[in-house]
Amino acid sequence: MTTLQTPNTAFHNGIFEHISKIRVPVDSLIANRAYGAYEFLRINHSIPFYLDRHLERFFKTLDILRLSVQFQRVEIEQIIHGIIQKNGISDFYIKLFAVPESSNKAVNPSELFIIPCQFPDYPGEMYQNGANLILKEYSRFLPEAKTTNYVASVYWQHEMDEKQAIDVLYFAGDEVFETSRGNLFLVKGNEIYTPDKNILKGITRSIVMDLASEENPVKELAISVRNLFWADEIFITSTTKKIMPIVKIKNATIGDSLVGPVSKKILSLYNNKLNMRN
Amino acid sequence: MTTLQTPNTAFHNGIFEHISKIRVPVDSLIANRAYGAYEFLRINHSIPFYLDRHLERFFKTLDILRLSVQFQRVEIEQIIHGIIQKNGISDFYIKLFAVPESSNKAVNPSELFIIPCQFPDYPGEMYQNGANLILKEYSRFLPEAKTTNYVASVYWQHEMDEKQAIDVLYFAGDEVFETSRGNLFLVKGNEIYTPDKNILKGITRSIVMDLASEENPVKELAISVRNLFWADEIFITSTTKKIMPIVKIKNATIGDSLVGPVSKKILSLYNNKLNMRN
Repeated sequence: MTTLQTPNTAFHNGIFEHISKIRVPVDSLIANRAYGAYEFLRINHSIPFYLDRHLERFFKTLDILRLSVQFQRVEIEQIIHGIIQKNGISDFYIKLFAVPESSNKAVNPSELFIIPCQFPDYPGEMYQNGANLILKEYSRFLPEAKTTNYVASVYWQHEMDEKQAIDVLYFAGDEVFETSRGNLFLVKGNEIYTPDKNILKGITRSIVMDLASEENPVKELAISVRNLFWADEIFITSTTKKIMPIVKIKNATIGDSLVGPVSKKILSLYNNKLNMRN
Repeated sequence: MTTLQTPNTAFHNGIFEHISKIRVPVDSLIANRAYGAYEFLRINHSIPFYLDRHLERFFKTLDILRLSVQFQRVEIEQIIHGIIQKNGISDFYIKLFAVPESSNKAVNPSELFIIPCQFPDYPGEMYQNGANLILKEYSRFLPEAKTTNYVASVYWQHEMDEKQAIDVLYFAGDEVFETSRGNLFLVKGNEIYTPDKNILKGITRSIVMDLASEENPVKELAISVRNLFWADEIFITSTTKKIMPIVKIKNATIGDSLVGPVSKKILSLYNNKLNMRN
């Protein structure tokens, strides 16, 4: 196993600084009130992967939360390239935070924090054998905004660990929406289905929709809990998980409990994108 | 108007420090994941008001979140008395935070932060004329835990300001639960009603139940949205708002739109408690 290099140069308040200096008051809106815009992306072979789509979503989140940062999109792009250069590492992840300055309520402007981080890839066997999900009743507040509110996700991590699940799938009423940190896809025959509403529109989700468009069109529509066990294949998508096949949800097997051909094909197309260096 | 003195000595990591030094990493569980235990109490004439009940609830929140701090209850009491002494101010507020150390998931132990803060009292006219609420569909995750997750509260602050509302009342289905930072009470005849489930059990709520017990017994039960407009009087309770009469919810007046006798009586009994210096 190769040791991952840890990036440690971050950006805050107009300057590049060591990540240990990037701190916020404990009674700030982001810490005391869970109110902050968030974005997360992959640096792939020294290039930010689908940066345009991530920044578009970051600004959409800012709009939903009624926040703004004192940087234009092109300036944020430059800062991210500065972080890549200063850290001298080709493959890592980046987190963006917009933290409102007021400690009472959300007001403009917000402070922009950009920090690098590192996570190991999920093991190859997981992509070959498939992973498990747990299922919980929950729906995210302001689902189309990527905020720092992951309290349910952290709370259920305990049960995920116990049941060796990779993530928790959220449902409400009879409808399933998304996992705590990813999007859901069902495969039936040649068709691929994904929930259309009350979700964070993932960037990996959007890439899958591009990749799958020809032979396996993706249909966005409401998906019921029952549909999960009718599907031939299920996979979830996220920046760190890529295209992760799911073979079990809450003790029930999906399809024939093996990773199916459509999941494999989409993963392979996605990995080609990563290998193409964008 | 008297100028409020601002306390600035806080506690973290075993020592008393200036509040400006009390900071957390932006990618900590409390800032990046909204996962932290929280408590808030009043220092009244140099004495923590109902400290026992607040600490009991803080430890209950820790249990629910599966967190722990490396301090016993009696040690936390001593730290709070230290903060009162070092700040040399008799009337202010205190926030407690337990912040998990891991940046990935909730694990023991957590770091304990205790910081002082100051807010002006609500104006006397508001207690005489009554305040307004807005009404929104929402239910808090882990309602019996006091966490730092106030994202909905901050999000709706904009509309509260627009409509000159003091708080937002949450409902789900046909049932009302609590406001974003307080508990709900309805008065009908001599009886007082308050929601029984899916709420944070407020300390001011518990004091009202003590104070009201003789002439006006409090009944805990499910309350529907319709019940709001059937009530003679409504008030909400919180550490900063005390007993705040509500005369309007979402454009509809409550009772005869005047502050009623039961609300006035409970407020007066509560103010006596504060004046008695505990």
